[in-house]
Amino acid sequence: MKSIRTQFLLAVALVGTLAFTTPITHAEDGLPSWNDGKAKQSIVAFVEKVTKEGSPDFVTPAERIATFDNDGTLWAEQPMYFQILFALDRVKVLAPQHPEWKDKEPFASLLKGDLKGALAGGEKALMEIVGVTHSGLTTEEFEKIVKDWIATAKNPATKRPLTEMVYQPMLELLAYLRANDFKTFIVSGGGVEFMRVFAEQVYGIPPEQVIGSSGKLKFELRDGKPVLIKLPAIDFIDDKDGKPVGIQQHIGRRPIAAFGNSDGDLQMLQWTAAGPGARFCLYVHHTDAEREFAYDRKSHIGTLDKGLDEAAAKGWTVASMKDDWKTIFPPAGK
Amino acid sequence: MKSIRTQFLLAVALVGTLAFTTPITHAEDGLPSWNDGKAKQSIVAFVEKVTKEGSPDFVTPAERIATFDNDGTLWAEQPMYFQILFALDRVKVLAPQHPEWKDKEPFASLLKGDLKGALAGGEKALMEIVGVTHSGLTTEEFEKIVKDWIATAKNPATKRPLTEMVYQPMLELLAYLRANDFKTFIVSGGGVEFMRVFAEQVYGIPPEQVIGSSGKLKFELRDGKPVLIKLPAIDFIDDKDGKPVGIQQHIGRRPIAAFGNSDGDLQMLQWTAAGPGARFCLYVHHTDAEREFAYDRKSHIGTLDKGLDEAAAKGWTVASMKDDWKTIFPPAGK
Repeated sequence: MKSIRTQFLLAVALVGTLAFTTPITHAEDGLPSWNDGKAKQSIVAFVEKVTKEGSPDFVTPAERIATFDNDGTLWAEQPMYFQILFALDRVKVLAPQHPEWKDKEPFASLLKGDLKGALAGGEKALMEIVGVTHSGLTTEEFEKIVKDWIATAKNPATKRPLTEMVYQPMLELLAYLRANDFKTFIVSGGGVEFMRVFAEQVYGIPPEQVIGSSGKLKFELRDGKPVLIKLPAIDFIDDKDGKPVGIQQHIGRRPIAAFGNSDGDLQMLQWTAAGPGARFCLYVHHTDAEREFAYDRKSHIGTLDKGLDEAAAKGWTVASMKDDWKTIFPPAGK
Repeated sequence: MKSIRTQFLLAVALVGTLAFTTPITHAEDGLPSWNDGKAKQSIVAFVEKVTKEGSPDFVTPAERIATFDNDGTLWAEQPMYFQILFALDRVKVLAPQHPEWKDKEPFASLLKGDLKGALAGGEKALMEIVGVTHSGLTTEEFEKIVKDWIATAKNPATKRPLTEMVYQPMLELLAYLRANDFKTFIVSGGGVEFMRVFAEQVYGIPPEQVIGSSGKLKFELRDGKPVLIKLPAIDFIDDKDGKPVGIQQHIGRRPIAAFGNSDGDLQMLQWTAAGPGARFCLYVHHTDAEREFAYDRKSHIGTLDKGLDEAAAKGWTVASMKDDWKTIFPPAGK
């Protein structure tokens, strides 16, 4: 006869096995933070039809590519893109080595705390800031700097750590798709070397599945040791028209599902939708001023204007953060 | 009592299950076309130590990245890179639409069958040929053209289909690494859109794990339908210094094992070798004039000169095709 303890361990082992081997294919298991509305139903209906063997819409696992924008789709982008917060903090750290910045815009305004003045120079000013803060280092040095920074960086509006400003329903969606043999990619205008530092830990997305904007790199032997230097020159902007290009260059096949939140994602969604067979496109709509931020057509960050019209015209799914999401962020300290 | 037929089916099912679930970790299972010499032993010793849990050299599966050059490492590159054969055939197909080519080099020589004359213009001539044959099409049109071409293209020296000019010992090595939870990538100077057409079928490497040279792409809506146009402009050359750059841009982590056959792979091997922990670098050495081709330091194609010296100095593995490989190519019609 088995002891109580043995029976208990067998039960634990059995439950463990079941939990491990039962694929999450039903929404009630995989998407608990989504309200049971049209958005959730459309996700589940799509996943079920492309994974059902024998179905006319069946897609082999190798072709189950899903691409996600990052800023505003997987994590917040207000009151400012988080990578700009990094660049601004970095300017302050580097300032002692650059006495000339005291009289040179956009740095002079920035160091006086006048962000609006610093960014008055528009794209040129921003590129200058990104240039000095993202280059002149080896890839390994840069990785360490971002890692150290993001460990303590907080959102200026919510005061929460940036890595907790991710959307719980989207984390569930990523896991739900992967449990159904999808390969999940980030396709973002953000810097690829910046995002890769936290994408694996925060989203479960490995570096080789992160596509982003990039600067040029230079291979060099330093005292016989090979390094890659980040140069102050843009290699690729992974935004708007660049998104389908980045997808083609890195993945080499068309996604069957794509997720975004702004007009910068429109071409990615168009490219995804235009392939043969079943397709799924979803816009995250920032409608919740209370729990997050509310913005769309007229926002400077994450403008969603043409995309809203095209989603309506093409029947794409629009997930309203206010109505479709039970919770926005994971519990603090997760 | 079970019938003979039922017993037979059960036995088949059982054997099938075992074959499917037993990991290939020993060389005698996974590398039958490799002679039992130093090269094979060094591969197996490396794989065993990085996959053994609790070993000081253990590497988590996510970090088991292995990169392979293509031309001369996974398939033959003599008497000429196969992609050049494609370009030359394509010039002939396009010639009727380009009457001006009759008097214009390098096309005039080429159309007269004078390959040497055509290539006398050096890199500029070659780039012109690649430009007209690899651009002005959508990515989907190009894929179809390569697919149709490679279905019948033969090597001019051996008369074998190009997709059978792959190295059987390297196919086994790819499978052996994957059975040990390595992720295998191609990192080649060849065109990425060219290689992706056959890499999955021939090597089991999906398009998103193929890194190569690339031309610029342009996103466009044609009658409302999104297409990507291949432009006649180089985006990236994935050779020499470019290989570590391509690896960083696409994979974002350093391989722990790298395989090449020429000086064009040297920087990839240096970059791989310089990481922390256990590392493995291997050069395929073309030493078999009878069964394949013999060339190294003085060859114009696949020059292996500095690489041979560095392999000796650093203790990298050099696999001699003549001595280390029982067979070179798979059986015809595989």
